[in-house]
Amino acid sequence: MNDRNESATTRETAADMAAVASLLEMADRLGVLDVLQRESPFGAKEIAEAAEVPQAGAASYLHALAAAGLVVRADDAGAFRAADDFADRLYESGYMSWVLNANRPFIEHIAEFLRDPVRAGAQYVRDGRQVAVASQWMGSQAFYPKALSTIIEARPSRVVDLGAGTARLLIETLLAVPGSTAVALDLDGSACREAATAAKLAGVGDRLTVVERSIQSVADDPSPLEGADVIHAGFVFHDMLPDEEDVADAVLSNCYDALRPGGIMAITDAVPFVPNERERRFSTIVTYYHQQFMRRRLLTAEEWQEKLVKAGFGGTTCIAHRFPTGRLFLAHK
Amino acid sequence: MNDRNESATTRETAADMAAVASLLEMADRLGVLDVLQRESPFGAKEIAEAAEVPQAGAASYLHALAAAGLVVRADDAGAFRAADDFADRLYESGYMSWVLNANRPFIEHIAEFLRDPVRAGAQYVRDGRQVAVASQWMGSQAFYPKALSTIIEARPSRVVDLGAGTARLLIETLLAVPGSTAVALDLDGSACREAATAAKLAGVGDRLTVVERSIQSVADDPSPLEGADVIHAGFVFHDMLPDEEDVADAVLSNCYDALRPGGIMAITDAVPFVPNERERRFSTIVTYYHQQFMRRRLLTAEEWQEKLVKAGFGGTTCIAHRFPTGRLFLAHK
Repeated sequence: MNDRNESATTRETAADMAAVASLLEMADRLGVLDVLQRESPFGAKEIAEAAEVPQAGAASYLHALAAAGLVVRADDAGAFRAADDFADRLYESGYMSWVLNANRPFIEHIAEFLRDPVRAGAQYVRDGRQVAVASQWMGSQAFYPKALSTIIEARPSRVVDLGAGTARLLIETLLAVPGSTAVALDLDGSACREAATAAKLAGVGDRLTVVERSIQSVADDPSPLEGADVIHAGFVFHDMLPDEEDVADAVLSNCYDALRPGGIMAITDAVPFVPNERERRFSTIVTYYHQQFMRRRLLTAEEWQEKLVKAGFGGTTCIAHRFPTGRLFLAHK
Repeated sequence: MNDRNESATTRETAADMAAVASLLEMADRLGVLDVLQRESPFGAKEIAEAAEVPQAGAASYLHALAAAGLVVRADDAGAFRAADDFADRLYESGYMSWVLNANRPFIEHIAEFLRDPVRAGAQYVRDGRQVAVASQWMGSQAFYPKALSTIIEARPSRVVDLGAGTARLLIETLLAVPGSTAVALDLDGSACREAATAAKLAGVGDRLTVVERSIQSVADDPSPLEGADVIHAGFVFHDMLPDEEDVADAVLSNCYDALRPGGIMAITDAVPFVPNERERRFSTIVTYYHQQFMRRRLLTAEEWQEKLVKAGFGGTTCIAHRFPTGRLFLAHK
């Protein structure tokens, strides 16, 4: 047979990335991401057990992962391990999964949202687990490393994380800064329990205090923050805007008061409609999802600075995260 | 304020592409893709009318499109037109929309599909419209141009398209080859009606015969194919495999008999698990979706050649489409 391969030089990046995102979302749905990322080699048996599916199905899924280059042979016995770029692929997939899966209700029901945002917002809600999973995949490289290195560089004796989730950031800080203590504050009970368990497993359980409370509660009672050197808040303040702006201001003011002299407030949040070529498209969808569908207000860098100054802070530094449209605001007491 | 932009050189392509796909899927859901792609400038008013949404909502959506660079100012009066790369962006979005939206039931219910493929296949079906829309976006650059140029280069007097859909390929052929006639065969009644209307609008209605029938019916009655110089079949044969392989063979054999001497059979289809770096990921998901979830068998290039030779054809040429994992098989009578 004659073979002509005229088009083989054109790279269809979108096709490539979407395929990977599908296979990794499947891994998450099957509950086998831990198996795929573990140190020791695995096979269809381990996938079948973790996913509680027949081994034939697990084998065909594993074959697909190998064909796509997400896993590679680990030994001559036929076992597999994650490919070297697995973490990068998971990171990239996070963006696709957040935009096109976690926020899918907004895409599917856009006409209803444009006709009656309040009613549609009540009717079509996102799946919180899908949001959390995609955010973690994105965060692994997009905002987590810079937040962590900033905190560790400050060599804090006490760190607070507002909206700490499973306290991953704090546990890594406690491991990196001997003798330090930390407070994980989160509204979600199951995240709090998971945080406490993870801290114990990591051997820092005695240095982590878990507080199951809303960020808003800090406006009335800032006691868990007392004496902190660093207070971190990632993507939590914008949830109070615009409806609870006075509460957000009170929280920020209490953060200032609670910090030790020289302490650092570190806020990661999204700024609206960044116009540069690298960020404009993702920035648009983040802004549009928040404004039109979740009816939130994102603050500009200038508005963040104003808020921080108003709360008592001095010089503010704005650092661009790798996450397009994401910024890390650092303010000193 | 201090600004540090350390990460601004890293390009997050996945974030960029996913954001665009979301905005374009929204355009499709709103029914405004035609407005965005039309020659004359448009504004929020035209979007509001086409989508039947309030003008405020249309304006905020239009603002998002502009912020993402999908539309640009067309004049000083504030009207917009599609950006120069709009068609390319729609094409890229097709892959993401096909993999992550049109086939989403397979991702969401993978555990059930691995446990009981037959039952899950009956329970979780794809939205045919989402499949058709995404396929059209991909096809616009991935397989349509090569199929069209191949047909036109043959200067046929009569062309048949098996699974013609809305007969876009045939209408363009009729416009490009004066005096030629064509037969559009498709099972879908509404697609057939749309084909007839589109042909009339294009001024070739008298040269197009629309036949509302299944591909399978050609095994029993090949009369619509008689005297064709080119018979085209895009992504339709694999739907008969493996369950109706004898029917597929009979259709192919009847195609051979119906063609004039020197006539061309042109089949576009997906080949399974292509291992090269450019195609392997998308090829995997196409193959896996078909095998595990739709229980179809994709033929290798060698298997296609065998089938074509068995039907009577001579030399076969295999041309790689830009569509990863897609091949155009050309066989002569």
